[in-house]
Amino acid sequence: MNPRLASIEPSQIRALAAKKRPTSIDLGLGEPTLLPQQRFIDAAARQTSELGMKYTLNPGDLELRTLIAQHYAYPGMAEGRNVCITGGSQEAMYVAIKTLLDPARDEVLIVEPAYPAYAKIAQLEGIEVRSVGMPAGSGFRYDPDAIVAALTPATRLVIIGSPSNPTGRVISRAAVKSLAAALLARGGEPVWVLDDELYRELTYVDDAGSMAEVYPYTIAINGLSKSNALTGLRIGWTIAPAPLCDELNKVHAWVVTAANTFGQRVARSIFTEPGALSEQAAWYRTQRAAVLEALRDSGLTYVEPDGAFYVCVKLPPGTDSIAFAYRLIEERDVVTNPGRIFGESLEGWLRLSWVAPIEAFREGLTRIAAAALV
Amino acid sequence: MNPRLASIEPSQIRALAAKKRPTSIDLGLGEPTLLPQQRFIDAAARQTSELGMKYTLNPGDLELRTLIAQHYAYPGMAEGRNVCITGGSQEAMYVAIKTLLDPARDEVLIVEPAYPAYAKIAQLEGIEVRSVGMPAGSGFRYDPDAIVAALTPATRLVIIGSPSNPTGRVISRAAVKSLAAALLARGGEPVWVLDDELYRELTYVDDAGSMAEVYPYTIAINGLSKSNALTGLRIGWTIAPAPLCDELNKVHAWVVTAANTFGQRVARSIFTEPGALSEQAAWYRTQRAAVLEALRDSGLTYVEPDGAFYVCVKLPPGTDSIAFAYRLIEERDVVTNPGRIFGESLEGWLRLSWVAPIEAFREGLTRIAAAALV
Repeated sequence: MNPRLASIEPSQIRALAAKKRPTSIDLGLGEPTLLPQQRFIDAAARQTSELGMKYTLNPGDLELRTLIAQHYAYPGMAEGRNVCITGGSQEAMYVAIKTLLDPARDEVLIVEPAYPAYAKIAQLEGIEVRSVGMPAGSGFRYDPDAIVAALTPATRLVIIGSPSNPTGRVISRAAVKSLAAALLARGGEPVWVLDDELYRELTYVDDAGSMAEVYPYTIAINGLSKSNALTGLRIGWTIAPAPLCDELNKVHAWVVTAANTFGQRVARSIFTEPGALSEQAAWYRTQRAAVLEALRDSGLTYVEPDGAFYVCVKLPPGTDSIAFAYRLIEERDVVTNPGRIFGESLEGWLRLSWVAPIEAFREGLTRIAAAALV
Repeated sequence: MNPRLASIEPSQIRALAAKKRPTSIDLGLGEPTLLPQQRFIDAAARQTSELGMKYTLNPGDLELRTLIAQHYAYPGMAEGRNVCITGGSQEAMYVAIKTLLDPARDEVLIVEPAYPAYAKIAQLEGIEVRSVGMPAGSGFRYDPDAIVAALTPATRLVIIGSPSNPTGRVISRAAVKSLAAALLARGGEPVWVLDDELYRELTYVDDAGSMAEVYPYTIAINGLSKSNALTGLRIGWTIAPAPLCDELNKVHAWVVTAANTFGQRVARSIFTEPGALSEQAAWYRTQRAAVLEALRDSGLTYVEPDGAFYVCVKLPPGTDSIAFAYRLIEERDVVTNPGRIFGESLEGWLRLSWVAPIEAFREGLTRIAAAALV
């Protein structure tokens, strides 16, 4: 057996979700509660009756890749050959980490609080993981200086997520410029940045930076899961400079051959219809306003989300967030996620998702506040 | 960059396919030319309008996994917890090889001629690959004694494919029993067998063995790509003893999260409707009869396929199969695959797929025979 498996725990998020009862208020959920746009599903089903369900090219349908590249139009990455369509953004991360790093000598630096999968994938590949926590004092705002200070000579990849799961933080335009300048100034072998933009369509602030816009050694990752309520479609992608993209394609082909053709057809319809990618964002904007009102009423300390559909709330000083989250399910029937699973910097906090009906969210907050005050 | 990538070439099958012209006779194709059963696609699209497109559990929808486990009913592997639904059988292979082997000490033994991906995946994972060729003299029949003789103390996994891509050979009931007995008699750490059964529904002989029926250390791999003309759906699976399945699930979850929900719905309909899995096999049986007639007429030496939709034809002694296949495209406009890419034991042969219209297949054979006689 592969000895690396023994040290990797299964997902804590899924373990907590498994404790959910039929009566539970679920603020743990990492997927939209909206239904997807059925017209795109129906169109893809109709196409199948004529075209069947054959493989696409390994990196995906070239027209879809071109549509995606042109939509984001990142400098030097705006052609179909810059895009690889993956089995969701999870496979995109997996392939990117596996391709870019040499386990024998390279390190990855994860900017935390962060989605736990980055570190787990690196562990699975035998890659040394370092992390740097963004400070709670500034509401976990991205701090380029802190990131650069945490680099070592072995760091070959920095992973950031913006909007962030779990904090909802968005990296600013000034911050991406400052980070890019500092990384370019280092000289020597480039440090790559993996910018996980899976929640990009759900951004509620104007000042949103994107590493791929300012830094040539960027892999941007995205997908349809969150923007279009299509978590189960498993369509994600990487956008990267062409020489790297060729290497990503190679690994991707041996891992899964290609992403599913049905999902690629759905994606092509979405990228062909103007506004379809951001159609559901309006619902999130309305929901967020109601969520912020409920948070203000709760008396809890929280980080106002710039994007995504999570909010982090603070527990009393010294609270073990994992124990608290388990107790919250047992005693108050509310599912949440403990901050510590997103990195030490989020210990003492809970991550709440706010895609549940607003009354349920409000009731959940009330119960959390009551438990926190015990 | 991961240094292992440099040594891994992209797929030769895909490189040859890229040479195809609009006029070409395509006998290279590894996917069905039939259309899939549209009723299952439409049913899955309808379900989406009610249920959305959420994630399933990481290892897949439990009802689907139960249906699959019960359909094959392998001893000790007949429950849902024995099945992991993967992004096609390619991911099933990838996860199985990655999970089962320790790159630091274990070897994999590939029974050739074989699908090239097994060796490529092992290389990508840094695992030592050995191979054992089945003898051309017997038409590449599976020979348990030759397989057992090729084991070393470091062999922890043997990979066989039955029906075989490329030879169409099926392992017999006697051969699986004999192989199982020899492996069990070795004692010590078990040697696992990965039995790639992707073409199982397309079997034309009665005496077809299955390792999972007789050997407890088996991972059976399968999927809907070939049986139901659904290559682009990317639905495959592993069937394995529960403790191993738990480990496979773990790796699978970090690589891709879960297989796509749409495809799992299609699969559930197929496994629910009696006969739907083998409905298209009738077309292949008819086609095979016509293919065998064309082969007899061609004067070429060939291996009569027990299963799958390939046939191997012999080239004149001393022929370089790769050079021949490229010349065949250039000069005669016929796409085929050279034997050598499936292992040294198939050098001097060509693999032809026979899913093209029978007249095209017949014309292709005529051109191959003419080229071989030059």
